[in-house]
Amino acid sequence: MTNCSVLRGEILEQPDVLRRLLREGREVVDLGRRLAGAPPRIVRLAAHGTSDNAATYGVYAFARLAGWTAIRDSISVPVYDGVRPDARGDLAIGLSQSGETPDVVAWLEAMRAGGALTVAITNDPASALAATAEVVLPLRAGEERSVAATKTYTAELAVLARLAAHAGGDGSTLDDGIAATADLAATALESLDDAVTPLARELAWAGRMVLAGRGPEYATAREIGLKLTELCQVGAVAMTATDLAHGPVAALDEQFPVWLCVAGDSALPAVREAVGRVRETGAPLIASGPAAAELDGVRALPVAQPPQLLLSPLLSVLPGQLFAAALATAKGIDPEAPRHLRKVTMAR
Amino acid sequence: MTNCSVLRGEILEQPDVLRRLLREGREVVDLGRRLAGAPPRIVRLAAHGTSDNAATYGVYAFARLAGWTAIRDSISVPVYDGVRPDARGDLAIGLSQSGETPDVVAWLEAMRAGGALTVAITNDPASALAATAEVVLPLRAGEERSVAATKTYTAELAVLARLAAHAGGDGSTLDDGIAATADLAATALESLDDAVTPLARELAWAGRMVLAGRGPEYATAREIGLKLTELCQVGAVAMTATDLAHGPVAALDEQFPVWLCVAGDSALPAVREAVGRVRETGAPLIASGPAAAELDGVRALPVAQPPQLLLSPLLSVLPGQLFAAALATAKGIDPEAPRHLRKVTMAR
Repeated sequence: MTNCSVLRGEILEQPDVLRRLLREGREVVDLGRRLAGAPPRIVRLAAHGTSDNAATYGVYAFARLAGWTAIRDSISVPVYDGVRPDARGDLAIGLSQSGETPDVVAWLEAMRAGGALTVAITNDPASALAATAEVVLPLRAGEERSVAATKTYTAELAVLARLAAHAGGDGSTLDDGIAATADLAATALESLDDAVTPLARELAWAGRMVLAGRGPEYATAREIGLKLTELCQVGAVAMTATDLAHGPVAALDEQFPVWLCVAGDSALPAVREAVGRVRETGAPLIASGPAAAELDGVRALPVAQPPQLLLSPLLSVLPGQLFAAALATAKGIDPEAPRHLRKVTMAR
Repeated sequence: MTNCSVLRGEILEQPDVLRRLLREGREVVDLGRRLAGAPPRIVRLAAHGTSDNAATYGVYAFARLAGWTAIRDSISVPVYDGVRPDARGDLAIGLSQSGETPDVVAWLEAMRAGGALTVAITNDPASALAATAEVVLPLRAGEERSVAATKTYTAELAVLARLAAHAGGDGSTLDDGIAATADLAATALESLDDAVTPLARELAWAGRMVLAGRGPEYATAREIGLKLTELCQVGAVAMTATDLAHGPVAALDEQFPVWLCVAGDSALPAVREAVGRVRETGAPLIASGPAAAELDGVRALPVAQPPQLLLSPLLSVLPGQLFAAALATAKGIDPEAPRHLRKVTMAR
């Protein structure tokens, strides 16, 4: 027997977490305004796992909303190699749900020593990461009991987008967009089970999957892939839609499903091209995201279009989270008790 | 029937390609010296597929040998989102075997317009990418006929390491190291088949694999993973050794083999910790790289220790390339004729 109630409960909490961030998350507004007057040279982001997937989103959020170059920085360069980068003028953001991941803490310490302005995005403002940072942006997601992170992921996306928007000068429009997105997420979560549950039963045999997206939806592809690997023992390969059409399309067949994450943005032609290439292979095609229904020959799990396209990953990930929980159930795996996993990453 | 002769032939050419680069590749020395006097603000790297895996290596090479921050830049930010980053003072390097990948060309054009010094690393000095760049660093690998890139990958690693070393001030030591590594590669290629071929037969059932490394060997993990997906239809999930211990270790079992890429560098403790976690799951464990034999309970495909640890990825990848070719054969797949693939990426 499987019991998905904790995981499912946290998935369903996500609209409320977004609303709470808007209501109580003043720190991000203050930091955004402070940075607007003194833009960083580059934004360095560091994290593992789900938080690293949120950092992937951050690269696009800072580029689109503030015009800044943001990078997923190497943790091992300062922490293992002892190379102390010159980080003067940089903004360094460590992301960790628990705030206790040792090498993210060590990375943030190195960035502070290197002259960066250091920020912690964490669900625990009393954590080691928070203590290391000059500015703490709490996720306010409430305790996350499931081993698989869900609500802290969307909370991280929201915090990153808000920081970029308040720095870029139009924070209030983005905040309104997140409020509307929270309502759209609540509506989506009410109806998605009807589509997701039978799909999970049909694909209970899947041991391999490709997840693809482009631009901000690449973050969604990575995050759904991680859920499918962690919860469902799927060999889930995440890549950009362009990389898919590049080489791995050669590997596809009827037993190698492909899940595309697709907003209706400028990356849509690249996704459409990948769909055409994939369709020739006979691989089952699933699509989530606001533009999923615009693709031919796919099993669409559409969500509504948010007011800003950059916010689509907050919605596109929801069908993937629910699907991963349902696929675990269909495979007879208990997602509350992954066999070899601890909640707090003691990653070094 | 499968025919691996073209692919295998190109794998075996790699020592000669490295030697030819040392003999004829003066451009990289000149560019390195020029940059030594005027270090870039950051190094931006952009590529797809195998070349993107080489870019992953570049991040560590520039950090260790020159002390510079290098990033795998977002292609879609300038190309699809129309965000023109301020790239003044930056070094922008586009990598493409064919030099014809359209969105890498478009990215390099955007970087040039944004004020970066632009460089093409390509096997075709007459390509569109070369025409776009101010400096061309040819791979001199000879025509690559196999759809799966091998010799251009190690050539890209060598060019990136040489550029970083000549910029960092100790190019001649690194060049000597590459010469010695070419000899070690030739020796390894003579003997690895004896270990790789039976392993591929044993694992012919594998449909999912995890590839893990840390630091520069993370590039090897990504590249072996891509070969296994492209050539063998494996759902190959590449991650850092730390990320493996984080979440995906929960997914492992006796049918989910793990391949670790391991140099004897400062990341060894992180890899050792991952090995301990993986061993509890019963997953078959394979390790390639100079420190592979130092791990307990793994099927080791060791290679020699190169003079500089940073060069270990030039050797660690060889067992993976040979294994992918042998696994394709064991699975009855013809690696010379992937069903849906073209050699030149027309990725947009």
